[in-house]
Amino acid sequence: MSTLEEYVYGINTVQEMLSAHPEEVLELLLARDRRDPRLKRLLDMADTRGIKVHPRPTEVLSRLAGNDHHQGLVAVVRGFKYTTFEELVAQLSGVERPLVVLLDGVQDPQNLGALIRSAHILGAQGVIIPQDRAAGVTPTARKSSAGAVVHVPVVQVVNLARTMDALFEKHGLWMVGLDQDAPSDLSALDLTVPVGLVIGGEGRGLRPLTQKRCQLMGRIPSLAAAGGVDSLNASAAGAVAMYEVLRQRRALV
Amino acid sequence: MSTLEEYVYGINTVQEMLSAHPEEVLELLLARDRRDPRLKRLLDMADTRGIKVHPRPTEVLSRLAGNDHHQGLVAVVRGFKYTTFEELVAQLSGVERPLVVLLDGVQDPQNLGALIRSAHILGAQGVIIPQDRAAGVTPTARKSSAGAVVHVPVVQVVNLARTMDALFEKHGLWMVGLDQDAPSDLSALDLTVPVGLVIGGEGRGLRPLTQKRCQLMGRIPSLAAAGGVDSLNASAAGAVAMYEVLRQRRALV
Repeated sequence: MSTLEEYVYGINTVQEMLSAHPEEVLELLLARDRRDPRLKRLLDMADTRGIKVHPRPTEVLSRLAGNDHHQGLVAVVRGFKYTTFEELVAQLSGVERPLVVLLDGVQDPQNLGALIRSAHILGAQGVIIPQDRAAGVTPTARKSSAGAVVHVPVVQVVNLARTMDALFEKHGLWMVGLDQDAPSDLSALDLTVPVGLVIGGEGRGLRPLTQKRCQLMGRIPSLAAAGGVDSLNASAAGAVAMYEVLRQRRALV
Repeated sequence: MSTLEEYVYGINTVQEMLSAHPEEVLELLLARDRRDPRLKRLLDMADTRGIKVHPRPTEVLSRLAGNDHHQGLVAVVRGFKYTTFEELVAQLSGVERPLVVLLDGVQDPQNLGALIRSAHILGAQGVIIPQDRAAGVTPTARKSSAGAVVHVPVVQVVNLARTMDALFEKHGLWMVGLDQDAPSDLSALDLTVPVGLVIGGEGRGLRPLTQKRCQLMGRIPSLAAAGGVDSLNASAAGAVAMYEVLRQRRALV
């Protein structure tokens, strides 16, 4: 499930990686012509941790990154290591009110990265994605997460529906699906219970098979007229839903 | 402030444009090799409205769009027409509890587009952006808004701080700034008053000058440890804040 080497790029992303998981960083490649003052601190960090830095022409970095948003810095890292479902479940056992995010076919790695970042900030214990027909944690997703992928366990599963059943039946998480046509506002549901938040892919929402596995369905209110664009994008919807869970739980205290 | 002609691309974006503002569409350019079934309906719409469709090689469409995410369809449209501040203010006068979103230096057109889409869905009356050092409504922003730009007035202003003063003093909107270090949760503020929601740019938050103009400051709670990535991205933060305004107002009814 993980390739041997990958490239992560961009100053924030590489910095997160160096702080949280220096053992994953094999080497740094640095453009010759960059003068960003943040680079200095970063190179000191690399030095302290015994990580070699090699100068490279900007074009080489762009080729490795697949685009030119690398800010002059690419890290060669071990391939992204997914967490196993069993590992995630073990981590949940100590948590009073778990929140796990399940993505039903998010295909844009930028959206996946943004959702992982939101999961990190808003306190989810993990993100579960299907192995097929969905974005994985690619270098683009890592960059778009601003490095948050190193903090949030991401699990790839073969069968999302079966995973939902297991989380509900064996681990007591209520599956809460987001759907524009749900009769209840999300804020009318009790989200202070252990929650698995199920979010659909871009433009299609939840598949019927996934929807059937949800114990609760909630909508984010929309004031847009029907017919045109009438829902938030997947990463905005996910952030709003995670926020609502957090808001309700903070209101309890 | 608007160029003569622009290109918008992607099936949803072009469809929104044809539905809401067909008079802005000068012609459609269609790749020869696409078979998406949604194209048929779209071409019928164009035909009904007397808009000519020209076949073009895919490479030409990619060049016009600036990338290859056009799904085989590019519309040549009149340049984006910004709303004037006076027009926006006139529209607010009939609204009981206005919500306006002010962006303090959002530089990524994809974030701008996503924020405009969220503003449309969550019921903001308009989006105000500074003319300098900020993304404008480019074709990328239009695409990222999924076409919502045709529904939400976007105003470009020379001086954001002065605009904030005018909205508060003359039009009674409370300026509510988002800041991670604010002492209050956003949900602890009364957002049922007329609100101007002020959102900072990527990675830097609000400028001090902007912050000084806010009557209220609120934070989105973060459970991430300090030091690493500790805040939502600009478009997720904006969606969450607009949702919180809407949630409080719906709870009133």
